[in-house]
Amino acid sequence: MPQRQEASLIRALATALALVVASGAAADEGLWTFENFPADAVRAAHGFAPDQTWLDRVRAATLSLGGCTASIVSARGLVMTNHHCVEACVAALASPDQDVLVTPVLARTEADEKTCPGQEAYVVTDISDVTARIRAVQAGLAAVQAAAARSAEIDRIVAECERGDAYRWCEVAGLYSGGVETLYGYRLWDDVRLVLAPESAAGSFGGDPDNFSFPRFAYDVAFLRLYENGEPAATPQHLKVRPTPLSEGEMLFVSGFPGETGRADTLMHMTMYTDTYYPMSMSLGAELRGRLIAAMANGAKPRGFDALLAGTENNFKREWTEMASLRSPGFLEAMAAREAQFKADLAARPDVAAKVSDAWSEIDTAMLAARRIFNMRYLSEYAGAGATLAFQARQIVRAAGERKLPEEDRLPGYSDAAIADLRSEFEHEAPVYAERDELLLGFWLAKLREYLSADHPMVRAALGRESPEGVAARAISQTGLVDAAERVRLLDGGADAVAASTDPLIRLMAAIEFAARDVAARYHEEVIVPREAAERRLNEARFEIYGKAIYPDAFSTLRLNPGVVAGWTEPDGRVVPSFTRFSGLLERATDAAPFKLAPLWEAAKDRLDPDTILNVSTDNDTVGGNSGSPVLDRDGNVVAAMFDGNIYSNGGYYLFDPKLNRSVVVAATAILEGLAKVYDMDRVVSELTAE
Amino acid sequence: MPQRQEASLIRALATALALVVASGAAADEGLWTFENFPADAVRAAHGFAPDQTWLDRVRAATLSLGGCTASIVSARGLVMTNHHCVEACVAALASPDQDVLVTPVLARTEADEKTCPGQEAYVVTDISDVTARIRAVQAGLAAVQAAAARSAEIDRIVAECERGDAYRWCEVAGLYSGGVETLYGYRLWDDVRLVLAPESAAGSFGGDPDNFSFPRFAYDVAFLRLYENGEPAATPQHLKVRPTPLSEGEMLFVSGFPGETGRADTLMHMTMYTDTYYPMSMSLGAELRGRLIAAMANGAKPRGFDALLAGTENNFKREWTEMASLRSPGFLEAMAAREAQFKADLAARPDVAAKVSDAWSEIDTAMLAARRIFNMRYLSEYAGAGATLAFQARQIVRAAGERKLPEEDRLPGYSDAAIADLRSEFEHEAPVYAERDELLLGFWLAKLREYLSADHPMVRAALGRESPEGVAARAISQTGLVDAAERVRLLDGGADAVAASTDPLIRLMAAIEFAARDVAARYHEEVIVPREAAERRLNEARFEIYGKAIYPDAFSTLRLNPGVVAGWTEPDGRVVPSFTRFSGLLERATDAAPFKLAPLWEAAKDRLDPDTILNVSTDNDTVGGNSGSPVLDRDGNVVAAMFDGNIYSNGGYYLFDPKLNRSVVVAATAILEGLAKVYDMDRVVSELTAE
Repeated sequence: MPQRQEASLIRALATALALVVASGAAADEGLWTFENFPADAVRAAHGFAPDQTWLDRVRAATLSLGGCTASIVSARGLVMTNHHCVEACVAALASPDQDVLVTPVLARTEADEKTCPGQEAYVVTDISDVTARIRAVQAGLAAVQAAAARSAEIDRIVAECERGDAYRWCEVAGLYSGGVETLYGYRLWDDVRLVLAPESAAGSFGGDPDNFSFPRFAYDVAFLRLYENGEPAATPQHLKVRPTPLSEGEMLFVSGFPGETGRADTLMHMTMYTDTYYPMSMSLGAELRGRLIAAMANGAKPRGFDALLAGTENNFKREWTEMASLRSPGFLEAMAAREAQFKADLAARPDVAAKVSDAWSEIDTAMLAARRIFNMRYLSEYAGAGATLAFQARQIVRAAGERKLPEEDRLPGYSDAAIADLRSEFEHEAPVYAERDELLLGFWLAKLREYLSADHPMVRAALGRESPEGVAARAISQTGLVDAAERVRLLDGGADAVAASTDPLIRLMAAIEFAARDVAARYHEEVIVPREAAERRLNEARFEIYGKAIYPDAFSTLRLNPGVVAGWTEPDGRVVPSFTRFSGLLERATDAAPFKLAPLWEAAKDRLDPDTILNVSTDNDTVGGNSGSPVLDRDGNVVAAMFDGNIYSNGGYYLFDPKLNRSVVVAATAILEGLAKVYDMDRVVSELTAE
Repeated sequence: MPQRQEASLIRALATALALVVASGAAADEGLWTFENFPADAVRAAHGFAPDQTWLDRVRAATLSLGGCTASIVSARGLVMTNHHCVEACVAALASPDQDVLVTPVLARTEADEKTCPGQEAYVVTDISDVTARIRAVQAGLAAVQAAAARSAEIDRIVAECERGDAYRWCEVAGLYSGGVETLYGYRLWDDVRLVLAPESAAGSFGGDPDNFSFPRFAYDVAFLRLYENGEPAATPQHLKVRPTPLSEGEMLFVSGFPGETGRADTLMHMTMYTDTYYPMSMSLGAELRGRLIAAMANGAKPRGFDALLAGTENNFKREWTEMASLRSPGFLEAMAAREAQFKADLAARPDVAAKVSDAWSEIDTAMLAARRIFNMRYLSEYAGAGATLAFQARQIVRAAGERKLPEEDRLPGYSDAAIADLRSEFEHEAPVYAERDELLLGFWLAKLREYLSADHPMVRAALGRESPEGVAARAISQTGLVDAAERVRLLDGGADAVAASTDPLIRLMAAIEFAARDVAARYHEEVIVPREAAERRLNEARFEIYGKAIYPDAFSTLRLNPGVVAGWTEPDGRVVPSFTRFSGLLERATDAAPFKLAPLWEAAKDRLDPDTILNVSTDNDTVGGNSGSPVLDRDGNVVAAMFDGNIYSNGGYYLFDPKLNRSVVVAATAILEGLAKVYDMDRVVSELTAE
């Protein structure tokens, strides 16, 4: 009997979900732009909505770190973000004997604040709608010419916008698949220094087992500072940090730069991915993870292995939980209902439907092509499986070939401009992790043979009479690509330099390029081009029908989302409360990583107020890229830093489920308590709480 | 355009497949019993069908080795099977310094033939239908009583059949889910000696990359001998080996003991597995594989790692290719069409349909329950992830608990009889691979925490304040279960002995049994019992409607399948020819394993006739368990040994696709050539070719 009831519950859930998503935005779903924030709807739902002053202030203090978000939290350029957003900086600045697992970075004075190599930060200063200006130059042109005209006009708009100011940059983002052309102007900082980073044992407390989970007990916060001319930047537009605790059900906003969503993806697009990409990526990731764990089993720590393992585990768990969402009863049905609703709305608008034509069947055809060649393309383009040197060799070889073609016939990523960007990257001396690259290259070659077969011409050309591991050991130990000048020389030298090179990595990639280029081109022509063209028509139609009543899919532009402090109820009936506290951290601690308290926390544990709220579950709609986002109260004060989501949040790539999808944030109360009582960083506390 | 054509081709394919399978058996599909071989249909299709003499002769010479098949090929008990079927025997008999990769086992005289420890072999001597006898005792009884009556009657039938002869055993197999109760009488041999096993470099040439592939170049054959009273067994019923080559399209038969198929599984049953079992099993398998590869990367070979890696890779590839079949366009549609056809046929027989009632929705409900608790149950029952000692501890703890319950309330596998069998197993001194068991136990505990979360009561009880690896190292190094007497003492001692034990493995398993037992029981009650009951009703209905016009799903009883020598055409249009030859082996060889020729083959390569057929693709319908099966011509002579299938063959668990599903066999021509020219084993050649 309970089973029967559950079956109908699931059908009811599917229907409810479908209604939510078909209506565009309900509950606290929505990656809204600041320039089109649905204040009326939010006020209706929550009894409050921000006014323009509020929006301007929050916008001006929401920083992008490129891949992560942060907030300006003092008048002297202090920046708050996540610990996991500064790990690369910590690693780059660490001395060889420093154990980042148990040693925090604590700049006791401003003089101790060191610049994070390569780190930039930028904030949106102005937003304008340039749709009319772009449409004007496109008027009357056919598709190809219209795209070129758009591109040229955008170059002019950006040049005018940047005004030659090296600390300003601009971009035109085609929101709603180009339905609204929006110009974002940014203020840029290129001297960003590290103020405080907790030890990993605190910042990533719980490690992979707790990743994407809640209840959670991570002190995933860090502080940076913006500098100008060697001095802390003056940042009067900063946000204030609220020292008082959050309350159950309290309204919250997350401001940030969410990376990517596919909520407008068609079912066929999504099922192609679930049937091809996910199984391959997860199988490769799982095996690579196993190799790394075993390679480090006896305490060995070859350089780069730790970070690679963390990234591999994070990716695996994200994909596992995305798949779990997709497989959960009701989820696919809800996606199908959303698509059906759109089709019905489209049918009611024959003028719009005519322009869409048979976009769906074009996508179906492209996805069928994708299924046929997915494995070959994925493995071939996965060159080196992340081995930096191997991938650079692929880029040198490919650039040499592509440059001989007119730009319009080249593979994506190999325009003259893109090759120039590649050259700039190559000029930097990057750390080389030979042991890691050898493992990754050998792994890639083994997988290439496993999935394409030993008979495949690409495999025969790559391996000859050697083993995958043998080729990798020889190529990595003998390559000259560790030298930036040599990389640049080969890139500049083009086809002649590649042909003349005896570098074993160059020879390896050159030997298989005949087949690799072919499969990349086929996938581009048979899958990506037709799919994107069809999806663009669908998105244009969606915008014509729904207009700005819906939000555009995320792609790293600034967004704002309203929500509330909220736990959730698991499908099995278990209730997950909204808050964790320091008392829970102490209960959860064991004698073994990743649940072992760091020494400073162990020493401070009797001083911490056990009732202080540590992590919080909220129903904000966030995705990767939002990490480090300021979590704001109605007054626009910072009450937390967003750092993760629960396992259901990963399904949010496709569909936001208001019943289950939760953000996980670290509360300002805990941040302040830790700064004062664990790290003795009163100077940061004073700065954060200054009037 | 080609894409559109392909889309309709796929629909056509799905329809064609569906017709094939709905009609029960067409093309060369069918795991037929010897007692119900469809001679008329086979004669219609092939112009030939075996008569009763043929069937009797082949049956009497088709051996089961338990998990593999073999054939009797001389009058002195010589047996032919696969190399991969004797690897365990080779490992057990090998001296510590023997490298089985490059050293074959060659018994130069009968005196050199050593007994494979624990190896038995048996052949079907008589088959009878005991349906009427069993139905008679069930008449008028309710379901539970009828099952008990069946069980008791089977015990009587088996006892009468075995006549107290230690070299005879009997079983009643409920074919067609019990629609036909068949009594099989077997002749048993328990002294089976190793005559010849190739080096792994030849027997498994191509290793994992070539596994489930074709073209193929493996000498996957081995020879054993049956002994009675210390002398070679007299086996006048033996088959003859044909020394002349196979020809394209030639008709073939495969006789053997296929292990398991799920061709009557409902779609819901199958999709539950594809959504739960496969992702979990493949992810765990991939990571374990990575751990093993990395652990052996520097030439280290901890005991048991090699075989564990080979098994893990084989399993992963089998599941990967099964999933690839299931995801291929048309496959699911064909399964759905088969189910729809059955439903239509059922609807036309209201008398039968009434007995089925709502079996499908009962399965749906059970599968929904399975989805909810699958991960927890799988991980919990996967105790030790294959660590022998850990699993023995689980069995001891569980048996202690179950024995306190009436038999009908116990978990499957813990009846008094099953516990007695367990005790016999425990009495054997088995090799203990501590390093392997430590790795596996640590792996299992880490996965338990990863998927159930650090908060799960089972995880907390298992780990306490330790890491998974810490618990594993401590428990494996300190356990007393390596001692057979101690295992038996604890099993016999029951709950008191378990409670008193300080053995860390026993304590570990006892600590989590409260939760593990619960989830096992829930899965049994909510999933297995209702699903099996509903499937039984469906299978009974299927038998009532189709009768013996269809074949029963495989479950390790003797079967015969007709087919032909046939390559296939890949979905991308590439044609795969039927034969490989020694010339291809020499071309494929490289300087690195698993494609490196073994020394004896390297030395013999100029003597081998390059045109000799080595491996052959046939359209026989075979599954795991058929390995080693004799492949027979119309005259009933052995022309090859079946050893594998192509990648599409793994989808054959659910559905036989006559266009793509192929068996891979090693030809008698190559077997004889290798025996003579590589191994200089003329004594075996003479025996095989004796008139």
